[in-house]
Amino acid sequence: MKMMYEINDTHDPNLKSWVESANDPATDFPIQNLPWCAFLDAGASQSFSTPRLGVRIGDRVLDVSAAASRGLIARDDSDHLVLDAAQHMLSHADYRFDSIAYISRMQPGAAAQLRAAIQRVLAAGFENLSESKFPGSRLVLPAEEVEFLLPVQPSNYTDFYASIHHATRVGAMFRPDNPLLPNYKWVPIGYHGRASSIIASGTPVTRPSGQTRADDAEAPRFAPCRMLDYELEVGAVIARGNELGSPISIADAEDHILGLTLVNDWSARDLQKWEYQPLGPFLAKNFATTISPFIVTMEALAPFRCPAYPRPDADPRPLPYLSHAGDEHLAGIDITLEVHLASAEMRRRSMHPVRLSRGSFKSMYWTLAQLLTHHASNGCNLQTGDLLASGTVSGPAPDSAGCLLELTWDGPGKPRKPVELPTGEKRLFLEDADEIILRAHCERDGFRRIGFGECRGTIAPAKS
Amino acid sequence: MKMMYEINDTHDPNLKSWVESANDPATDFPIQNLPWCAFLDAGASQSFSTPRLGVRIGDRVLDVSAAASRGLIARDDSDHLVLDAAQHMLSHADYRFDSIAYISRMQPGAAAQLRAAIQRVLAAGFENLSESKFPGSRLVLPAEEVEFLLPVQPSNYTDFYASIHHATRVGAMFRPDNPLLPNYKWVPIGYHGRASSIIASGTPVTRPSGQTRADDAEAPRFAPCRMLDYELEVGAVIARGNELGSPISIADAEDHILGLTLVNDWSARDLQKWEYQPLGPFLAKNFATTISPFIVTMEALAPFRCPAYPRPDADPRPLPYLSHAGDEHLAGIDITLEVHLASAEMRRRSMHPVRLSRGSFKSMYWTLAQLLTHHASNGCNLQTGDLLASGTVSGPAPDSAGCLLELTWDGPGKPRKPVELPTGEKRLFLEDADEIILRAHCERDGFRRIGFGECRGTIAPAKS
Repeated sequence: MKMMYEINDTHDPNLKSWVESANDPATDFPIQNLPWCAFLDAGASQSFSTPRLGVRIGDRVLDVSAAASRGLIARDDSDHLVLDAAQHMLSHADYRFDSIAYISRMQPGAAAQLRAAIQRVLAAGFENLSESKFPGSRLVLPAEEVEFLLPVQPSNYTDFYASIHHATRVGAMFRPDNPLLPNYKWVPIGYHGRASSIIASGTPVTRPSGQTRADDAEAPRFAPCRMLDYELEVGAVIARGNELGSPISIADAEDHILGLTLVNDWSARDLQKWEYQPLGPFLAKNFATTISPFIVTMEALAPFRCPAYPRPDADPRPLPYLSHAGDEHLAGIDITLEVHLASAEMRRRSMHPVRLSRGSFKSMYWTLAQLLTHHASNGCNLQTGDLLASGTVSGPAPDSAGCLLELTWDGPGKPRKPVELPTGEKRLFLEDADEIILRAHCERDGFRRIGFGECRGTIAPAKS
Repeated sequence: MKMMYEINDTHDPNLKSWVESANDPATDFPIQNLPWCAFLDAGASQSFSTPRLGVRIGDRVLDVSAAASRGLIARDDSDHLVLDAAQHMLSHADYRFDSIAYISRMQPGAAAQLRAAIQRVLAAGFENLSESKFPGSRLVLPAEEVEFLLPVQPSNYTDFYASIHHATRVGAMFRPDNPLLPNYKWVPIGYHGRASSIIASGTPVTRPSGQTRADDAEAPRFAPCRMLDYELEVGAVIARGNELGSPISIADAEDHILGLTLVNDWSARDLQKWEYQPLGPFLAKNFATTISPFIVTMEALAPFRCPAYPRPDADPRPLPYLSHAGDEHLAGIDITLEVHLASAEMRRRSMHPVRLSRGSFKSMYWTLAQLLTHHASNGCNLQTGDLLASGTVSGPAPDSAGCLLELTWDGPGKPRKPVELPTGEKRLFLEDADEIILRAHCERDGFRRIGFGECRGTIAPAKS
């Protein structure tokens, strides 16, 4: 069995941590999770306010950089090498050039080895990183006292379109008789997004201005977007790349993935409609893309593997280079995904965010391994730190749609049906001061819950 | 008048250099040009084989890094600051983070100031960098002894579609009755390309494999591309970026451009046809993009400014944010652009490459300033080192088309007409071992010729 599917001691639900909050059954971050993050220690002296490599556990963050430099994690040279690589990759320093020598040595299994080492020092009975051993050391910090940064500064960003439910619903809006294009079931459709405007969770998103044209107008106008939307996606962070000209086989594809984040691919639907032909989305998408602070490792997700999308008999089989062969039954991942919204009025009245949708990543037509393999199939070189996003995750049920464009659609020719908020406010698209919160978790009997944390963004008014 | 339009002493055609080859009227690189480059000194000892910042002059390269470190160029602190910035930006070290503090200080005019300082030390009568003064110093090296690298490692790559002649011809192939989409004359159409696969001139281009589907076939197949093409483009290298959320006015747009390169946006037409709907080109383009070794500065191009494309009266005026207002008469650049091809058989018979096309950059419907302003109009943040390519440069004449897709097209419904090479060989698209050479230059009475050098690439066979 492939390493990424293997369930082992690190997934043991009985394993407890001396960080008490990690033992709460409701936490996203038990000792079985340990996602990577990058953070600033807001409480530290000036000299320490550089980006740190961290691991989230319960309501705390382990400062991996500090713990490793004290020799508290790595036990041998091989551990140190892996730590150096991770530090370089996840920090805001340059991982594209300076650390490429390190990263290229990060073989499959190295990240798993490091995760196991960190799990050992966080396990109950091994309190040597705790405050009682190192008073004032800030090795394990309260999460509320740190500022989470982008967990990776992506070199390149690719966005796919892997949900057949999303593609079919959106297609039906433009082509009621022929919603799905002929290539969809053969080609994992994707396009290049903008890496520079990827922002950390919590960063405000300024409403973009741009060209739009009303259906009955001759000329377009340049004005603030009036159909601002979110898109719920899952992003894969690339650990090791490939040489230009050298494809990656589907059997090796997941060895190139460090882990997953949540992605909000903010979209200006009115700009998109006017600009997107013939070369695809551009300004409708590149004003902002938010990612969550934590990279949940493929190792932590092993217990939640599930079959790839069950293609109906009438659908074509994937071409050989995209065929999972023997491991189709584990090529998917069952991740529950939710979108929540809080308006300014809801916050004023201290109301909880309202859930707009709930779906699962297992409903995607193409697996992550297929997306990655297709991307490199022409020899395109993936690089350490690249972000490959899934495209909007929408399931078959109407309330599992991952964007407002779908949620408020009521069928061809009909007026859009607004979403109603608990305050009585209505939404066809996002208003200024609306906050969107993406959440995700995995659950399975006999295992601890593995969560992704949150990916948040609030709409700021357009600049005049 | 804006600084980038200003003709001054640095353009004086009577100015000579003590590098004799720069005084040859046919050279691309007189002392009035001085384009930036990055190179490895192949003849240097191991410790010097790191990327160097250079300036091309005649058949030589000035090692700016070495000359500056000896205090031979910079005369005051301000010069040093500019040199540091240029070194960081153009070297293969990380300019995205480490040097951002330097780069952000590179105000409009700083690059011009540096160019003037370098011009002074290369002028006849000021031989203090020459071999006679510093024997064995390798401050001014024969170009044939160095390896030219990418002149910039682009952070983000955007490709536009700014030639109306290209858009119309290509559109006619798919939509004979309606070749130009309704948005074309309003929106400078663009999309994101792949930054990781941008390669230096001379790097072989491996024929990509991918999915294609014959018109009469039910299923696609995965096989080597059979319709491999080049695209002749001009690329602008971004000097200073903008903050996310802060657009750039058209009046300020060119202040953000360091200079121009030649770009070959290699294209797999059969892959493109099958994959591009609905999200645009992806694997058909991202296997390789070649750029020329030299960044020709906007200052050097000042004498060759010309009016923006003369829009017919029936065409709409650009929206206000894209309107050139008072300087429409200088917003274009008259650059002559050529494509040459050499087959293996031609090289075997020692024949010169054959010219396939010749056109001018002045035929573009959208100016560089309009492309850049549109890109940032939604708040998208451009970054130092970004590459903004024009899209295929095709003029109105059939022999000015910048790709084989257009050159071999003989009208709707007709079979393609091959290009005939001097050997009698015929080409509809590129064959293995074909070399494509892009060249460009500016000429005007009373000024020295300013050339771009060459952008070369040879097709290597598909990997099995």
